[in-house]
Amino acid sequence: MTTYNEKIKNWLIQNRENTIDFLQKLIKLPSTQGNEAQIQAIIAEKLEQIGLQVEQWELDEEELQKHPYFFSNRTDFSDSPNVVGILKGEGDGPSIVLNGHVDVVPAGDLSQWNDEPYLGKIKDGKIYGRGTTDMKGGNLALYLAIEAIKNSGIKLKGDVILHSVVEEESGGAGTLAAVLKGYKADAAIIPEPSNMKIFPKQQGSKWFRIHVKGRSAHGGTRYHGVSAIEKSAIVVKHIEDLETERNERIDDPLYEKIPIPVPINIGKIVGGDWPSSVADLVKLEGRIGIAPNEKIEDVQKELDDWLKKLSDIDPWFKDHPVQLEWYGAQWVPGSIDETHPLMKILIEKFEDVVGTEPTIEASPWGTDGGLLSQVGNTPSIVFGPGISSMAHFPNEYIELEDIFITAEIIALTVIEWCEVADKTNK
Amino acid sequence: MTTYNEKIKNWLIQNRENTIDFLQKLIKLPSTQGNEAQIQAIIAEKLEQIGLQVEQWELDEEELQKHPYFFSNRTDFSDSPNVVGILKGEGDGPSIVLNGHVDVVPAGDLSQWNDEPYLGKIKDGKIYGRGTTDMKGGNLALYLAIEAIKNSGIKLKGDVILHSVVEEESGGAGTLAAVLKGYKADAAIIPEPSNMKIFPKQQGSKWFRIHVKGRSAHGGTRYHGVSAIEKSAIVVKHIEDLETERNERIDDPLYEKIPIPVPINIGKIVGGDWPSSVADLVKLEGRIGIAPNEKIEDVQKELDDWLKKLSDIDPWFKDHPVQLEWYGAQWVPGSIDETHPLMKILIEKFEDVVGTEPTIEASPWGTDGGLLSQVGNTPSIVFGPGISSMAHFPNEYIELEDIFITAEIIALTVIEWCEVADKTNK
Repeated sequence: MTTYNEKIKNWLIQNRENTIDFLQKLIKLPSTQGNEAQIQAIIAEKLEQIGLQVEQWELDEEELQKHPYFFSNRTDFSDSPNVVGILKGEGDGPSIVLNGHVDVVPAGDLSQWNDEPYLGKIKDGKIYGRGTTDMKGGNLALYLAIEAIKNSGIKLKGDVILHSVVEEESGGAGTLAAVLKGYKADAAIIPEPSNMKIFPKQQGSKWFRIHVKGRSAHGGTRYHGVSAIEKSAIVVKHIEDLETERNERIDDPLYEKIPIPVPINIGKIVGGDWPSSVADLVKLEGRIGIAPNEKIEDVQKELDDWLKKLSDIDPWFKDHPVQLEWYGAQWVPGSIDETHPLMKILIEKFEDVVGTEPTIEASPWGTDGGLLSQVGNTPSIVFGPGISSMAHFPNEYIELEDIFITAEIIALTVIEWCEVADKTNK
Repeated sequence: MTTYNEKIKNWLIQNRENTIDFLQKLIKLPSTQGNEAQIQAIIAEKLEQIGLQVEQWELDEEELQKHPYFFSNRTDFSDSPNVVGILKGEGDGPSIVLNGHVDVVPAGDLSQWNDEPYLGKIKDGKIYGRGTTDMKGGNLALYLAIEAIKNSGIKLKGDVILHSVVEEESGGAGTLAAVLKGYKADAAIIPEPSNMKIFPKQQGSKWFRIHVKGRSAHGGTRYHGVSAIEKSAIVVKHIEDLETERNERIDDPLYEKIPIPVPINIGKIVGGDWPSSVADLVKLEGRIGIAPNEKIEDVQKELDDWLKKLSDIDPWFKDHPVQLEWYGAQWVPGSIDETHPLMKILIEKFEDVVGTEPTIEASPWGTDGGLLSQVGNTPSIVFGPGISSMAHFPNEYIELEDIFITAEIIALTVIEWCEVADKTNK
C-alpha cells in the first residue's frame, strides 16, 4: 500500500520535466502591471486541465473603491483579470486558500542583467528571469501540489481555493477583489519567497511622500535663502528617531534576532533645480513598516503627529510645516496565531520532507496575507521557495529543487488540513 | 557754451522714447543659448548706424578648446555670433571695453509669470521680461552712452570697444573669444545688474557634482544596506564646514557686511529610485564661490582634498569615496585695484549725476569681468542698472530711469577716461 506521502512524491518526480517547461512558459511572459491577461489565460487553462472549477473576471474598480483597504494607482483594470480555481471538497472539511500573484515588477536597468530578463534560462539547477522568485516559482508549487493530490486520486473533505491574482506589487487589489467575491477559507498559505522559512506574521507597509520647504535665493547670496536640502536632513534624522521609538515597543520574540523589526526607509530624495540656487523644495519618498498587530490608520496618524513635532526642533517648521502625503502602495500586515493548527501541520510536514526543523520568523515585508487575514478573515501563513533578496533585482533566479520541495510540503499540508474523504482509495 | 555733461544729458532726454522702443524690440527676442543670431544682427545694425566699425563672427570651438579657461556645454557655436563695435579714437588715449552679454537664461515655469516672458510690457516706469535686468537694460545703457558721445560731436583720443557677446550664462565663451581675438583695452566696464553699486571685485564660481554611494537593500531589511541619503547628509555638513573655513580667511573690507562672502551652495539633490529600497546613490549639485584673489584650480584642489577627509568622519567613505565632478558652468573671478584711475573717475561721475556717494562692494556672483581681467589683462568694473535678485526669476523687470542714469554716468566716465581730443568742438 502506497501512502499519500509516497504518491505525492512519486507524482512530483514523474512530472518534473513537463513542469519545468510550464514554468519557463510563464516566465517568458512579462506579466508586469497591466499585462497579466495572457498569463492568466494560460493559468486558467492549466487549472481547468487539472480539473478545477475556474472563474476568471476583471476587477470592478467602482466596487473596490468602496473598501477602505482598496489601494491602487489604476482606475481601469481591463486586461488584468483575476483567476480562481476551486478543487471542490466532498464536504465537512476545513477549507484552504492557496494564494499567489502573477504580476511582476519591471525588469529595471537591462544593462544589469546578464541575459534578457524574460528568457527563463536554466543553469545549474536554477531558473533565471524576472518573476522567477517573486513569485512564479511559488505559484508553480501550488499548481503542482493540487495536481499531485488530484492525480494521486486523493479526495479531500474541504475545498482548496487557488487564487491567481493581479496587483500584489501595487496595493493588493487582486486579492481584495477575490476576498470580496467570497473566495475565502479557514486558512491560507502564500508561497512568497520566504526562502522556505515559515512566516506566521507579515509586516505591512505603506508608502509616503514628504514635501520639505525652503526659500529660494541665488547661491552667491545663499544667506538670503533657506535650504530645503539642509532642512530635509533634519527631517530624515527626525524620522530615524521615530523608527527607534516604534521598534523599542516591539517585544514579539519572532523579532528577537531582527536589528530593526519594522524599519522606516527613506528611499528617494529629489530637491532643488539649479546648482547655484538655494533649493526651495525637497521631496522625500519612503515606506514605513507596519507591525503585524498594528492598524494602518494608527501608524499613519503616528507619523503625521511625529512630523508636527519638527517645529520643536527647528522653528522654521512652525511657519513652513512639512506636508505628508500617502501614495503609491500599501501592504496590510498579516498574522496567524503561532499555535494555529495549520502552523502545526505545516511545521510537521516540513520536518517530514526536509528532515530538519523549519525556521519560524516574521516577514520583513508585506504580502497579500494582510488582506486575507484582515478583510477575508482567512489567517495566512507565508511559506515559499526563493530568496527574497533576489526579488526585484537583476538576474533574479530560483532554485528548481526548492519549488518541488515546497510543492511536496504544501500538498501534504493541504491533505492533512482539508482531511481525506472516506471514499478515497488509499 | 554747453559742457559735455549738458550735451550728454540733453541728448539722452531727447532720445528717450526711441530708445525705449529699441529696448522693447530687444526684449521681444528670446535670445536664450543658441538663439542669439537675430538679436546680434539687430545690435550690429544699430552699432553701424551709430557709426562704429563692426565685426561679427562665429566662435571657433577648436581654437577656444586650447584655452584653459574655455568652458562650455556646446561644441558648435553656429548661429550664435559675437559682435564687436569700435569707436576709433584719435590716438594716444586710454582705451576702454564696454562689455555686455545678449544671452538670457530660459523663462522657466511660465505659470509663475504674470505676462508672457518676452512681451516687454511697460508699467509704472518698469519694463518687464526675461533679460530686462540681465542684461539688456545694461546693454542699452552702453549703446546710449556711445551714441550720446558720438552725436554730441565729442571726439575721444582712446578707443571705445563695445563687446556684445554670447555665452555669459554658460561659462563665458563669448567674452573669451573676443579677448583672444584681441579686443582688449586698458580697462573695462560691465553693466551687469549691480543695482548701480560699483563692484571692483567680482566673485567667481564653479559648478560641481558629487556622487555619494550607498548599498542597496530592501526597505524592510534596510539594516542590510547603507543609505546614500543618510551619507549625503554627512557630505552636505562637511561641505558647510569647508565654507566656514574658507570664509574665515577672507579679510577684504569690501566683504565686511556680507554674512558669507564666498558661499558654497548645494542646490540640487537627487538620489534613490524606489521608496522601499535603500538608496545606493545620491547626486549633489552645487556651486562653489571663488574669491577675487583666488585661482579656480586652487579652489578645485581644495574641495577635492577636503572631500578626501570624509573617511576620517565616517569609515564608510574609506572604501566608498565620493566622486567629485566639475561640470556645467564656471565664472572666473575678477578684480580691479580699488585705487585704479577708472574707479576714481566712475565714482566721481556717479556723484555728479546722482548726487550721492556710490556703494562700493564685491559682487556675490561671477561675470565676464574675470575673463577680461585674467585672460585679457583688462581690469574690469561691474556697474549697471537692475537688481540682481530679479535676474533669472519670473516677472523680471528693470527700472527705465536707472538705465538712463547709468548711460549718463558711463558716457561721462568714458569721456574722461579716453580723454577728449583737441579737435573736439566744445
